[in-house]
Amino acid sequence: MPTLTIRGVIPPMITPFTPEGAVDLAAHAANVQRWNEAGLGGYLVLGSNSEAVYLNEREKLQLIECTCNNAASGHLILAGTGMESTRETIHLTREAAGAGAHAALIITPSFYQEQMKDDAQIRHFQAIADASPIPVLMYNVTKYTGINLSPRAVGILSEHPNIIGMKDSSGSIPQLVQYQKAAADGFNILVGTASAWYPALTLGVTGAVMALANCAPAECVRVQQWFGQGRAADAEALYRRLFPVNQAVTATYGIAGLKYACALRGYQGGSVRSPLPELSEQQKVEVKEILREAGLVG
Amino acid sequence: MPTLTIRGVIPPMITPFTPEGAVDLAAHAANVQRWNEAGLGGYLVLGSNSEAVYLNEREKLQLIECTCNNAASGHLILAGTGMESTRETIHLTREAAGAGAHAALIITPSFYQEQMKDDAQIRHFQAIADASPIPVLMYNVTKYTGINLSPRAVGILSEHPNIIGMKDSSGSIPQLVQYQKAAADGFNILVGTASAWYPALTLGVTGAVMALANCAPAECVRVQQWFGQGRAADAEALYRRLFPVNQAVTATYGIAGLKYACALRGYQGGSVRSPLPELSEQQKVEVKEILREAGLVG
Amino acid sequence: MPTLTIRGVIPPMITPFTPEGAVDLAAHAANVQRWNEAGLGGYLVLGSNSEAVYLNEREKLQLIECTCNNAASGHLILAGTGMESTRETIHLTREAAGAGAHAALIITPSFYQEQMKDDAQIRHFQAIADASPIPVLMYNVTKYTGINLSPRAVGILSEHPNIIGMKDSSGSIPQLVQYQKAAADGFNILVGTASAWYPALTLGVTGAVMALANCAPAECVRVQQWFGQGRAADAEALYRRLFPVNQAVTATYGIAGLKYACALRGYQGGSVRSPLPELSEQQKVEVKEILREAGLVG
Amino acid sequence: MPTLTIRGVIPPMITPFTPEGAVDLAAHAANVQRWNEAGLGGYLVLGSNSEAVYLNEREKLQLIECTCNNAASGHLILAGTGMESTRETIHLTREAAGAGAHAALIITPSFYQEQMKDDAQIRHFQAIADASPIPVLMYNVTKYTGINLSPRAVGILSEHPNIIGMKDSSGSIPQLVQYQKAAADGFNILVGTASAWYPALTLGVTGAVMALANCAPAECVRVQQWFGQGRAADAEALYRRLFPVNQAVTATYGIAGLKYACALRGYQGGSVRSPLPELSEQQKVEVKEILREAGLVG
Repeated sequence: MPTLTIRGVIPPMITPFTPEGAVDLAAHAANVQRWNEAGLGGYLVLGSNSEAVYLNEREKLQLIECTCNNAASGHLILAGTGMESTRETIHLTREAAGAGAHAALIITPSFYQEQMKDDAQIRHFQAIADASPIPVLMYNVTKYTGINLSPRAVGILSEHPNIIGMKDSSGSIPQLVQYQKAAADGFNILVGTASAWYPALTLGVTGAVMALANCAPAECVRVQQWFGQGRAADAEALYRRLFPVNQAVTATYGIAGLKYACALRGYQGGSVRSPLPELSEQQKVEVKEILREAGLVG
Repeated sequence: MPTLTIRGVIPPMITPFTPEGAVDLAAHAANVQRWNEAGLGGYLVLGSNSEAVYLNEREKLQLIECTCNNAASGHLILAGTGMESTRETIHLTREAAGAGAHAALIITPSFYQEQMKDDAQIRHFQAIADASPIPVLMYNVTKYTGINLSPRAVGILSEHPNIIGMKDSSGSIPQLVQYQKAAADGFNILVGTASAWYPALTLGVTGAVMALANCAPAECVRVQQWFGQGRAADAEALYRRLFPVNQAVTATYGIAGLKYACALRGYQGGSVRSPLPELSEQQKVEVKEILREAGLVG
Repeated sequence: MPTLTIRGVIPPMITPFTPEGAVDLAAHAANVQRWNEAGLGGYLVLGSNSEAVYLNEREKLQLIECTCNNAASGHLILAGTGMESTRETIHLTREAAGAGAHAALIITPSFYQEQMKDDAQIRHFQAIADASPIPVLMYNVTKYTGINLSPRAVGILSEHPNIIGMKDSSGSIPQLVQYQKAAADGFNILVGTASAWYPALTLGVTGAVMALANCAPAECVRVQQWFGQGRAADAEALYRRLFPVNQAVTATYGIAGLKYACALRGYQGGSVRSPLPELSEQQKVEVKEILREAGLVG
Repeated sequence: MPTLTIRGVIPPMITPFTPEGAVDLAAHAANVQRWNEAGLGGYLVLGSNSEAVYLNEREKLQLIECTCNNAASGHLILAGTGMESTRETIHLTREAAGAGAHAALIITPSFYQEQMKDDAQIRHFQAIADASPIPVLMYNVTKYTGINLSPRAVGILSEHPNIIGMKDSSGSIPQLVQYQKAAADGFNILVGTASAWYPALTLGVTGAVMALANCAPAECVRVQQWFGQGRAADAEALYRRLFPVNQAVTATYGIAGLKYACALRGYQGGSVRSPLPELSEQQKVEVKEILREAGLVG
């Protein structure tokens, strides 16, 4: 039975790098300290928006520790510990637990696409959950993996005592409804994109991990607060106002756009690691204009 | 200018594991020693069929060393050193060179799909080639990555003095012709699947890296020999006879099927790492039957 | 400026066939007469669920006339008149208007996929709207066409005085929000699947064309009524109860499943035209069980 | 048992239109008379490159008759008669036979994608072959339909006495080899793209239906002639020279590009029907330059 209820907005934190390309832990600490004031439910370290696939194990563990050391109390620390193999995922999950993570968010393996059907996914997650000292959540992000966990698979996995939820970044509201029907009681379904935030709230979702929360954390939190206070029209209006920003910092401009938006709002953004492309000067102007239209910069 | 001409058949070697799941270096050494007698052009260690995405860095370097220590002279040692980030790829490529690899075969990065367009790929490979102490080849394998290098990108990359070729596993013969037209003189285009082997020979290709060469190395070599000796009809007939086996050990049964076929032919096959599924007993019977029909087992 | 506001639930009507495979107009008339009592907003004749791609022009016009002759007053008659060419679409739209259709729902052309980008779509719909004697709506149904109208294209098209709306069957709620932002005032955005019905209502959508309304019209209507009466929890609960039925009569069992569900609920269902497959006896049992669980059959 | 052996190059003929958009039968007749001198094996009327999806039934039958009336003896007349429904396909095939077509080339139905699996395709083609007064061939063109006939389905269908072959436009040489293995003796496998012409010849294919044969018929014929005369190197060189033209008149510039290339070579090209886009002036310059580089215009 899940013992952990996940509520609120959780940013999949960007990873700042120094001009030389090293992980900038001081900048990360500064970001966390600032986010601490936004009313967030927790932090995701080593998510897709953290450029986790570009980090080595040492860097990953340092980032977890740094997050734990700087997070204010009451913030849940999720760590992305998924690797392609079950074996390496278990290894990294244990290390992450040792470094202080409260729960592990584990991406669906995807390299051998044709063979990574539901059954392989189920075996993978069950073996990890068996071995993990901390609770486990699945991470469904079809746009990066080409894999979509079926409601049936989620239903089966939700029965495991150490699997407490999932992050669904598909953006599909109808599928979200199917996951809700399939999952065991108490299973935490987190939406993985701000573009689904308000609709998900109307369907009873109470937690979200979304890129937009890096650069607009308080605003993302407010959508939920207002909705909870019966101010649905205000919540919906704010969601619609933030929507173009979310589009920009995810689909259109990618992580470089997200980092630049963070910088515009006073966080440590910085460059991306190669081969991700940096923004052009023209693109920076466009991102800034989008934030201005949303009232996020003056 | 490329100084290295790659000819002949190169198996993307399977990686044997012990029953406990560790890399079985002794078994790998035994395999290499046996392959040494087949007339192959070289070895690819850490390819897709090596379950490279399931290996950690220490295991990877041990496999390179073990391969170098056991390969007969005249065998080119290619190592798969591609990681998602440019930085980690350069690191691993240097380590691989130190461990004895002759050249690096580097997969196209693919995680952030939408952003991994030609320009990002070009920057990635050029930066790696600049930094690598050994020659570099691109590895185009759309079925795993969702990425397809355009002929234009291959043309540009082929001009780099330290980029000497590519492995194309798309299986597309028309695209192969486009690559040939786009590439600089002396650029080594290796086909990446036995299903394209005979057609590629008729178009002047002289090298191949193909899964089938793990379990039928001498036969794959013979297709090329016969074709070179003017025995085109014999070469084509052998290619057609091997075709269903290739289909089985790649598309239908995956790496577990390939490993089982290797075992049937006297190599050390063994299990796959999770989450790759093992063959059922029924599937083993089917694989054996397919090898029998092709005359590869009695 | 749109002069027509589309509200309520509209079934994309199934087309009954005689055992010999002819269009059964009497059965269709009987269905319409029965639907007349369900509180629907109108009817779509010649939609995807009508097997419109299997009907010839004469059959199409007869179905429009039969619908007009049997629909109770206050029901909007939409006719699907899209063909691959602009020329043939204009021809059929004019014929449909002559046969009594109030507005035309026109699918995005898709055969020459690579060339059917936004600009081609915009030219197509503008030319049709210029020539059509009745108002025009776009029909975006990516699962059948592989085409997705961009919010930008919808915005441009919504400015045309004779283009009054669109049906979006993508099921994507985030994209629905983008369409709403892009479209001119008064533009009618209809959701095209019951799986998005309740979420769409929470976002201000007031019209829907959905397969489920063939076999559960009053129930689909009630979701909207309850939502409009401030009974959001009841509306959501009913939506969730109907969800598995919708899944069955669209994705899982297709049009044959929808027709069988209609028959179970007292409508004239009948067979599908080849090459659509009929249900097996086992599948019929499954569909019936799904309807029973939803309380739609005893 | 197939009684018809199809050999040689067959152009999927473009359809000329008058400036007002009507089918220009005189121009079509003139084209056929000119093609008569090129050594072709026959003609395909109403193929994808004929904009068949943009033609109504009357236009289709007129084009068949016009082709039959103008084709020199010894030319096989194939007519594209595939519609989405089995019923309409049978109707049109019978009409086409009456209009003089020798055999029917029938595209895989595809609108209801998810339901158009192998079994539906098999039933469809068998029913048509049963009812057709002329022999039937399947037309596999995944880029337009999203459907790919499996080798297994082709094997089953090849057993039907009135199904004599298929056109495969997938461009996949490995799949071609699988089709050859699966099909009954005497089954005619025609490649459907010039980009696969030379490789297909090396694998024993003797017939082709390809867009390029509209504007370079004699050259396409010569590749086969030279190959048959043992001049493989010459055939391969010519194939490579034509390759960029083929790329231009299919993938890059579409049917408008093909028609313009035809006009440059003395045929009646003309405009395309909407919504297909016309070439810009800049694109015309590009097409002309590509033909010039291939030596097809002065």
